[in-house]
Amino acid sequence: MSAHGTEPCRLRWVDVTIPVAPGMTVWPGDPAVSLEPDTRIAGGDGSNTSILRLGTHAGTHVDAPWHFEDGGKRLHEVDPARFFGPAELRESLVNRHLSAADLGPAPLPSRLLIRTRNTEIPVNGPFREDYIALAPDAAQRLVDEGVQLVGVDYLSVAPFKQPGQDTHHILLQHDVLIVEGLVLGGIPTGPLAFVALPLALVGADGAPCRAFVGLERRDE
Amino acid sequence: MSAHGTEPCRLRWVDVTIPVAPGMTVWPGDPAVSLEPDTRIAGGDGSNTSILRLGTHAGTHVDAPWHFEDGGKRLHEVDPARFFGPAELRESLVNRHLSAADLGPAPLPSRLLIRTRNTEIPVNGPFREDYIALAPDAAQRLVDEGVQLVGVDYLSVAPFKQPGQDTHHILLQHDVLIVEGLVLGGIPTGPLAFVALPLALVGADGAPCRAFVGLERRDE
Repeated sequence: MSAHGTEPCRLRWVDVTIPVAPGMTVWPGDPAVSLEPDTRIAGGDGSNTSILRLGTHAGTHVDAPWHFEDGGKRLHEVDPARFFGPAELRESLVNRHLSAADLGPAPLPSRLLIRTRNTEIPVNGPFREDYIALAPDAAQRLVDEGVQLVGVDYLSVAPFKQPGQDTHHILLQHDVLIVEGLVLGGIPTGPLAFVALPLALVGADGAPCRAFVGLERRDE
Repeated sequence: MSAHGTEPCRLRWVDVTIPVAPGMTVWPGDPAVSLEPDTRIAGGDGSNTSILRLGTHAGTHVDAPWHFEDGGKRLHEVDPARFFGPAELRESLVNRHLSAADLGPAPLPSRLLIRTRNTEIPVNGPFREDYIALAPDAAQRLVDEGVQLVGVDYLSVAPFKQPGQDTHHILLQHDVLIVEGLVLGGIPTGPLAFVALPLALVGADGAPCRAFVGLERRDE
């Protein structure tokens, strides 16, 4: 790793993860998230412990290639070096799925975060089918320019019920790591550090993750 | 954050997380981990997705103060700045629970990882009641020297069925963040970077996390 914005001693880490709790917005048909008491001090137990149940694509999460490609890598086969490093946040406020040109004229960074009008959608509001996603030509531009990680601000990188699922296939057939459900409001565009650590699930199609951006401290 | 070992452009990140899978070793009485298919391409669905069920203290995980203190902070109330920064790995290979003196004569760092003979226990072997933990005077030394995070190499920082649970109470009443279940075999002792990101659970007593140490590259 080498580039602007990756010296943590000078960084302020900002959480860009959707809080995980019962009732949180999930993809239509995915299981509801539950967090149930297992033991409680108030009930006479020695400690408080709980049981969590959730889908592998709940909230902020990583897609492994196997999510859409039956021959693709499972999560534990993805190189964890992908989880750390410099990135760049770009913004496009168009009212349609993003085309290749909507990503801007400059060459793409190897790790790209994209903020769209999705950031205006309340994080705990009802699921919105009309979220902004990447059109296939935008996904193809990422592959052509060697992007290794893309992060987006709604629960899918692809349009809702996209016929043929070209956006996912183009990205995952080329091992682009996809991080979905980032909370990017208020983050300045430009270079930053990005860390997204998924649960260490073995054999999985993806996993919930915790994600942070690292910003230069303004007071230094 | 400031100190040796925290410039990621020069770091090699090593995963120190227990893999999460059905059948993994859990604390006696805690629920078994399950990862079940939800949709499968091989079954005619459009993608592969799964459902995960696990305890909040399964595998490598963080304890929030509320785990043992009913008035203590819940996980979402813990400052996430604690999750990132320099740390130091110390080793003690005694065959008893660690005393204050077993942590070594040098002043303690603010973020301390401890390797013990637990590292010899197979990560997927049967639960061992005779693991090595911190005696109360070691916990008190951490508090007295201002340690903010302690990471250990078995599923609890405290001896099994410790009467009165003094080790947990001393640490959690002083808001020491506890990371349990680290896989520390082969990591060189001394200064390093440490990142442990728990799931963003709201209101929880703790959560599974993904943890990495950052080491200086030897080839540079």
